[in-house]
Amino acid sequence: MKVSLIGKVFLVGAGPGDPELLTMKAVRVLREADVVLHDDLISREILGLIPRTVTIISVGKRCGAARVTQEEINAMIVAYASFGRNVVRLKSGDPMLFGRAGEEIDALHARGIEFEVIPGISVAFAAAAALQTSLTDRRKAARVIFSTGHRSQGASDDRATHVVYMPGSDYSTIVNQLLQEKFSAETPCAVVSAVSHETQSVLRTTLGALPNSGALPAPSILLVGEVLRHDEIQALAPLDAGSANRSGKVI
Amino acid sequence: MKVSLIGKVFLVGAGPGDPELLTMKAVRVLREADVVLHDDLISREILGLIPRTVTIISVGKRCGAARVTQEEINAMIVAYASFGRNVVRLKSGDPMLFGRAGEEIDALHARGIEFEVIPGISVAFAAAAALQTSLTDRRKAARVIFSTGHRSQGASDDRATHVVYMPGSDYSTIVNQLLQEKFSAETPCAVVSAVSHETQSVLRTTLGALPNSGALPAPSILLVGEVLRHDEIQALAPLDAGSANRSGKVI
Repeated sequence: MKVSLIGKVFLVGAGPGDPELLTMKAVRVLREADVVLHDDLISREILGLIPRTVTIISVGKRCGAARVTQEEINAMIVAYASFGRNVVRLKSGDPMLFGRAGEEIDALHARGIEFEVIPGISVAFAAAAALQTSLTDRRKAARVIFSTGHRSQGASDDRATHVVYMPGSDYSTIVNQLLQEKFSAETPCAVVSAVSHETQSVLRTTLGALPNSGALPAPSILLVGEVLRHDEIQALAPLDAGSANRSGKVI
Repeated sequence: MKVSLIGKVFLVGAGPGDPELLTMKAVRVLREADVVLHDDLISREILGLIPRTVTIISVGKRCGAARVTQEEINAMIVAYASFGRNVVRLKSGDPMLFGRAGEEIDALHARGIEFEVIPGISVAFAAAAALQTSLTDRRKAARVIFSTGHRSQGASDDRATHVVYMPGSDYSTIVNQLLQEKFSAETPCAVVSAVSHETQSVLRTTLGALPNSGALPAPSILLVGEVLRHDEIQALAPLDAGSANRSGKVI
């Protein structure tokens, strides 16, 4: 048996919120951890899967009075691992998309600490599942572009589906950027809030109408593109949309 | 108890291959299915999780002497559901990305058959995990673009990470498209073959050198962008890359 004085770190994707959307590997690693450092978007149900013997620390940058900086998070991961603990850094969605894993990985490399990345279901895919819409229906889109609300410029391409993470509550800047490039005001779009949670809600509209549609609560995600045009559904049998369509109209 | 004469259909993502990268929900639905229709990329280990009482049918379009058409797959899903069976349509990766789920969803809508989509780990995220590289390290990339080998034109953007699914064995066409747009020949890239399988292998090179690097076996995925430049790793402690780097050089 190989004995190491230094613990191992797992950067683990927790998925969009529903505990059933955790991977089997994520569940196993959470149960074998000594310490779990988690974002504030991680649901109570997921934290409930972690054994009581595990030290659980919220490092959500938006929670509490004292903000935790990225440098502090890096230092805590390194410190626990250096004391021989197995550390899970639990991030919502997938750890390799819009999660500042790059800085944590650099800190681990700098100390020579072994780590493993365990992918998670990113919210875009859970949103597509909720919308029952292929992101790349080949009749309408050739590619998908993932960006964030404050860095979405330059991403416009009307043969693509655009997914904007963290669009905020004022959609007008994003919409204006997309309209100034190649999209028309009639392009269908959808906002999905609290994807996969019990409070999930959906707004379907067009790019032109989006700024005046009222924002859904955070966390949310915005999807834009022709794949969201569902004319054919209305012409066919009624769709049992279930929880996928609690609000907004079908377009 | 609600009794339905029509079964329910689940479009389920099986992830990249490692059975531990199935979601808990996918495992539950597979165990409760009457019929599973699966692609030929689904690993034996995953099929081994399905109870013996379940009817398992390979509808891989590339397998066997008689090719199964998309129309035949649609008809089989509809037929089993119409006879009251619970049907799992099991697709590798995530069902809403490059998997022709759009046609299957249209067939289900047309017959008024209830269905649910269960997301899966797409191979890009498992490849990023294997490469230990954030797809959107904010110091190097603002967005990610997913395309396929034969539809990658128009996707070029040197502030993005490009992920090309199914790049094939001749990379020269894709590379020429990317070079003709905004990328330089020095842009780092990586091909990951058999992501998350025991036979996983990695080739790290540059766009300019890729066409002469020799192709890794299918299934594979190509990642291109500055996030793959790892100069800092060589200057720091040696990286224990483990199974993530069985071949190719670190750049």
